[in-house]
Amino acid sequence: MANDTRTRMLEATGRLLRQRGYHGTSLNDILAESGAPRGSLYFHFPGGKDQLVIEVTRASVAEVATKLREQLAAAKSPDVAVRRIAEATAEMLKASDYQRSCPVAPVVLDSTTDIPELTELCRQAFEEWIDLFRDVFAKSGIPDKRARSLAMLVEASLEGMMVICRAIRDHKPLLAVADELATVVKAAVAERAGSSA
Amino acid sequence: MANDTRTRMLEATGRLLRQRGYHGTSLNDILAESGAPRGSLYFHFPGGKDQLVIEVTRASVAEVATKLREQLAAAKSPDVAVRRIAEATAEMLKASDYQRSCPVAPVVLDSTTDIPELTELCRQAFEEWIDLFRDVFAKSGIPDKRARSLAMLVEASLEGMMVICRAIRDHKPLLAVADELATVVKAAVAERAGSSA
Repeated sequence: MANDTRTRMLEATGRLLRQRGYHGTSLNDILAESGAPRGSLYFHFPGGKDQLVIEVTRASVAEVATKLREQLAAAKSPDVAVRRIAEATAEMLKASDYQRSCPVAPVVLDSTTDIPELTELCRQAFEEWIDLFRDVFAKSGIPDKRARSLAMLVEASLEGMMVICRAIRDHKPLLAVADELATVVKAAVAERAGSSA
Repeated sequence: MANDTRTRMLEATGRLLRQRGYHGTSLNDILAESGAPRGSLYFHFPGGKDQLVIEVTRASVAEVATKLREQLAAAKSPDVAVRRIAEATAEMLKASDYQRSCPVAPVVLDSTTDIPELTELCRQAFEEWIDLFRDVFAKSGIPDKRARSLAMLVEASLEGMMVICRAIRDHKPLLAVADELATVVKAAVAERAGSSA
């Protein structure tokens, strides 16, 4: 049961962070949302709120990476993969009533630079996600430099659309952006195939 | 002098909001940052923190729109405009030591949906900025629907890169994304010119 409490506290922290950011997530909110007794907080997390935030951010970043890896591996081409990832992101936004988006962006925009471990985690998160796209693009024959700039375009568009869709409470614009991204990626692959033919 | 205090409080609120988000901006921070006496707060802003946040967000959104309008009007083509806007954004990130980015994104990610006036402001901000890009693209002959999806791609990429550049403390990836965006926009204009020739 002790582990259940621990897990519930991490899950509550993760939900609150994505919804309201670092500064909007108080220990009282975490206790209320998880139903955990106050005494259990420092028993499970001697480092308090920052330990909770670091642990759950690390887990969320890994979870996003695993899902991206699966989606990139499952699709028959990089443009189809990008489209499906964008569609799944749009679906997540809608299903959460525009409360759930990237686990890292709210932490970054809250300037948590006084917590070096968290700053490093956020930096690595973007590097890792961008590299996942880049590797798949490069494997399709797109030259390395271009593969990296395309990967950044895709990751940045998804990040940006998560903010925009939350603000306008509509997921459909992300589907239009998915079309644009898929077209760019498809053309980059075709261009490469053409030049090596 | 009373107006100076008012202006200083608004400026401090704007800086803090962009840097640390809505929940990270406390009245104490605003007073400390502006050097204003506590008594002046409710004299100038009877609605307290939320009045300050709404006023400064409205002003920041208008300021961004004015700058975008100028940059879009000054460039000789839409792709050059997009590149210059991205370069100016990269410059702002670097010059602020990665503390200053979009005035709206941190408010959106903090789920301030219990302040309807602020929610509406954030929604309108993105609609207005996206429309500015769309209008310029449409005027270059790009069909309306495509002009809108390209405008969203550009706005989303800039938003996303502001988060990513802050996280990785490097503005250069935004310049690579600027190349990608300029290429897509240039091709869309050329395609249209080709089809109507």
